Amino acid sequence: MTSTAGTADSIASTVKVLAFDIFGTVVDWHGSIEREMQALYPAVDGDAFALAWRAGYQPAMARVMRGEQGWTLIDDLHRSILDEILPRFGLAHLSEVERRHLNRVWHRLDAWPDSVEGLKRLKTRFIITTLSNGNIGLLTHMAKRAGLPWDCVLSAEVFRAYKPDPATYLGVARVFDAAPSQVALVATHHDDLAAARGCGLRTAYIERPHELGAARPKDGAPQPGNDLHATDLIDLARMLGC
Amino acid sequence: MTSTAGTADSIASTVKVLAFDIFGTVVDWHGSIEREMQALYPAVDGDAFALAWRAGYQPAMARVMRGEQGWTLIDDLHRSILDEILPRFGLAHLSEVERRHLNRVWHRLDAWPDSVEGLKRLKTRFIITTLSNGNIGLLTHMAKRAGLPWDCVLSAEVFRAYKPDPATYLGVARVFDAAPSQVALVATHHDDLAAARGCGLRTAYIERPHELGAARPKDGAPQPGNDLHATDLIDLARMLGC
Repeated sequence: MTSTAGTADSIASTVKVLAFDIFGTVVDWHGSIEREMQALYPAVDGDAFALAWRAGYQPAMARVMRGEQGWTLIDDLHRSILDEILPRFGLAHLSEVERRHLNRVWHRLDAWPDSVEGLKRLKTRFIITTLSNGNIGLLTHMAKRAGLPWDCVLSAEVFRAYKPDPATYLGVARVFDAAPSQVALVATHHDDLAAARGCGLRTAYIERPHELGAARPKDGAPQPGNDLHATDLIDLARMLGC
Repeated sequence: MTSTAGTADSIASTVKVLAFDIFGTVVDWHGSIEREMQALYPAVDGDAFALAWRAGYQPAMARVMRGEQGWTLIDDLHRSILDEILPRFGLAHLSEVERRHLNRVWHRLDAWPDSVEGLKRLKTRFIITTLSNGNIGLLTHMAKRAGLPWDCVLSAEVFRAYKPDPATYLGVARVFDAAPSQVALVATHHDDLAAARGCGLRTAYIERPHELGAARPKDGAPQPGNDLHATDLIDLARMLGC
């Protein structure tokens, strides 16, 4: 939206690989969980439930990265956070089968309306890969259901480190035998983008004003460090001549 | 082709993930390399060159698996074998740029004529993933060029072990939170299939009579251990009701 045509041209001509953050950037975790709760447990405040579940995510990854817990897939982190928050929402009685089913909602997240078309267009010119803390199985199930046309599914699971560990960003470059500057991270989170930039990657910020729900609009003002700033993935495709 | 309808039905109802061997099973490495040599270096016997290159592959992986050499991507193993065989074919004079280009022929292998349609049909009912000793970058470039519609790109690189190490077959099951019996390996090599079977996977043999060139037909007679025996990937899709 706001980047200069020169920057977009330089990225279009040098970057080979676009690596995408997933939760919030490509799929709508908040709205999907809220809708699932509405369908399954309508008495529960789905908005608060989605936020509580997601709030446990960074602390749980931090425990693993500090070595307090061995390497853990996000499916298992999601499950332990779920078990922790269920009583707070009056759902302590859920059975093992119901908990397993609910935990898999992260495999069933809906894409933002522009994601499939944007990715299809970007794929014509770039290698498009996930770079998510979500595990490979989760990302694959999600892609199959939502029609996300990845060339490749890369995850923290491949690098045994979660973002923002440099091993993840540099790992993408190494997998594709590319220089860090030939890889761009696409994300709606400035901390993720800043860490990628610190490793020499190019960056594209995607506005997702409703990542935290329609009632809680996110500040999507451009920040100077990012190479590109797009309203959505179709806007990014347009900028990059796809 | 020759398996009973009962076995095919049982696989169609229990298996969730089809993991595909790539070199020989999905793509024609021999013919592709022969054609590339014909185009680039027509004085060289492309058939013999392809066989010599591939012949170095198993011994090179065995050195890594015995610990004589650290973990190495197949791109790098292919390159060291290439450097070794070039003088034998009168190509010792090739420059670094020419060697790099030629080594990437493994990223440019052509699919067998039935592969894309067969995979598209199988993808409607199963998760379809690579399970190859080829590295992720190689497999991704190959898929993009040949139009192979993988749901996921799994490789020895993810598991830090080459097939037939059990870590690879069991790794696929673990990635998808599946029992080994919910995964089937699809391959044209009996040793690969036998190792997968030893880990509890189901197996499907694909005849590829010309894997080693039209002049060297391979014996594709059914072997009793495999659950399914198909002439090609369209035949496999048909058997599995896709």
